[in-house]
Amino acid sequence: MQIEGRNYRTVWEENKRLFIINQNDLPFKFSIIELKNISEIIAAIKEMKVRGAPAIGATAALAYAITVEKSPELEATIYSALLAARPTAVDLHNSLKIVQTAFLINHNPLQALTAARDFVERSVAECQAIGKYGEALLKNGSRILTHCNAGALATVDYGTALAPIRFAHSNGKKVFVYVDETRPRLQGARLTAWELAEEGIPHAIIADNAAGYFLRKGDIDLVITGADRIACNGDTANKIGTYTKAVLAHENGVPFYIAAPWSTFDRNLANGSLIPIEERDSLEVLSINGIKLTSGKSPAFNPAFDVTPIRYITGFITPAGIISRKEFARIWEMNI
Amino acid sequence: MQIEGRNYRTVWEENKRLFIINQNDLPFKFSIIELKNISEIIAAIKEMKVRGAPAIGATAALAYAITVEKSPELEATIYSALLAARPTAVDLHNSLKIVQTAFLINHNPLQALTAARDFVERSVAECQAIGKYGEALLKNGSRILTHCNAGALATVDYGTALAPIRFAHSNGKKVFVYVDETRPRLQGARLTAWELAEEGIPHAIIADNAAGYFLRKGDIDLVITGADRIACNGDTANKIGTYTKAVLAHENGVPFYIAAPWSTFDRNLANGSLIPIEERDSLEVLSINGIKLTSGKSPAFNPAFDVTPIRYITGFITPAGIISRKEFARIWEMNI
Repeated sequence: MQIEGRNYRTVWEENKRLFIINQNDLPFKFSIIELKNISEIIAAIKEMKVRGAPAIGATAALAYAITVEKSPELEATIYSALLAARPTAVDLHNSLKIVQTAFLINHNPLQALTAARDFVERSVAECQAIGKYGEALLKNGSRILTHCNAGALATVDYGTALAPIRFAHSNGKKVFVYVDETRPRLQGARLTAWELAEEGIPHAIIADNAAGYFLRKGDIDLVITGADRIACNGDTANKIGTYTKAVLAHENGVPFYIAAPWSTFDRNLANGSLIPIEERDSLEVLSINGIKLTSGKSPAFNPAFDVTPIRYITGFITPAGIISRKEFARIWEMNI
Repeated sequence: MQIEGRNYRTVWEENKRLFIINQNDLPFKFSIIELKNISEIIAAIKEMKVRGAPAIGATAALAYAITVEKSPELEATIYSALLAARPTAVDLHNSLKIVQTAFLINHNPLQALTAARDFVERSVAECQAIGKYGEALLKNGSRILTHCNAGALATVDYGTALAPIRFAHSNGKKVFVYVDETRPRLQGARLTAWELAEEGIPHAIIADNAAGYFLRKGDIDLVITGADRIACNGDTANKIGTYTKAVLAHENGVPFYIAAPWSTFDRNLANGSLIPIEERDSLEVLSINGIKLTSGKSPAFNPAFDVTPIRYITGFITPAGIISRKEFARIWEMNI
């Protein structure tokens, strides 16, 4: 992604050192940090300095390869610790499985590093393909609603839900993006709006409560979000509030698409009810930037994800093209 | 309402002086302010120091009577200025019409004051009746979702949506309230949670995005909200996000009730599409409690209300009892 005229990725490895854009500083400060050891890596994932299912997958793959090279005797511990960092996104499982398999062949960390680098490049290429195929859904004048951040910052680069929008914009189509602010952590207001502003793509932030109003008014032509885990039957876990937007889109006859790379598909879970839902600290709801919003006498519940049943999903924008709900089973026949 | 062991109303008149609880200071500070002239009154309504359709209606009625007594020659100006303070809640129109009619009979401000005092007492009695009738919907163990604040603070006292909950609690029923935080202005997190905490009623704040998750999970038995204007066919305007909760409740087979006093019904509008929707300052979306959330490069849209079509509404909790959707037309035959 272009930031102040320079190209960046969300996460990258350089001479076996791991770097990320610190997303908790955005949009006020653009800062790059090096994650120097497994504790810093785990903390960065848990605290969401790096977040977004594909970005977490890439970070974990690189982290595994780099740290296992330094301490091969701790391989099992490193693997488990990374796997446990966040429960909902399956990309973490899928990417770790790939790099661990590469390592275990000859107990050679360099093979894990090669596999991790491959995973990262494939992830970038898949997001580009999602952009290319997804662009077909966007006309000149299209108005798109998106939830949370499924942009370059949620992936290694380009994004999932935002990739088709980036492609349409750079091909000269005039599009407009309604950005759900996405409480409690405001990934829409903080990250998606920042990415769109950097790219010069017209957009407006709305309260999560307002999406239904604009859908009913006919101001939104389609909804695109990312995903954290897509089960065998197509039920899809994504940021809390996604289910709500899907129901509202369905009720108003507006198409609802999920954009995701192959690492987000989970052939091992029969349906969405089996996807583990992370519960995060209630302070995320009760405060912002450390400043309390309430008097402290009220508790809060903070589920971080919800599951959208496939019946509300019009189709999936994949690296191999757009797959409609009815064709969903075909996804498992593809080479993934 | 009981606050630290003392009884308060949201708005009241004492020797022709007008007082309100300043809701913009809550929940951190409980402060009472006197509104000394028409400019202060209009500003307090626009800035939402006093808010909630029935509370705005009561404030306007008292404000009209007090200020017209001081400056009867400005009656028309006072009337228009109050009427224009906020566009969506019809209580403002209905209460002003009552006090103006009383004034115009003999051009006697004291008759307006008597009418205003009557309006206020009737409003309190109606909220009590809503509480009494609405309690029948709540069992021991009921879990209720509410949106925004339709509590004592939104009325003169008792509240609309919260009145049945107050009654159930004081009659010993164990109830639990899911409180939508209600971005952008957080009336749920700031006001509803504060009221429930003061009353000792068990509750938890949730992000607006999480309501769908809990409805789908079967954790919510019914939804009750207030209203800002109910059209002739039953379509109901209320705080932005209400439509979303109604659609989600409908989709999950959970009953959805609107609680409102007679002043919120508007027999002059055929349906909800005719209700004017207030657009408020985009800064309300771009900040939380005055803290900026974005870098300033992104605009925001901020519709303050939405309209819920009657097909999503199970029934109305009125001062004359619970009226189901199918019986809605009966409301206009009642003595209102």
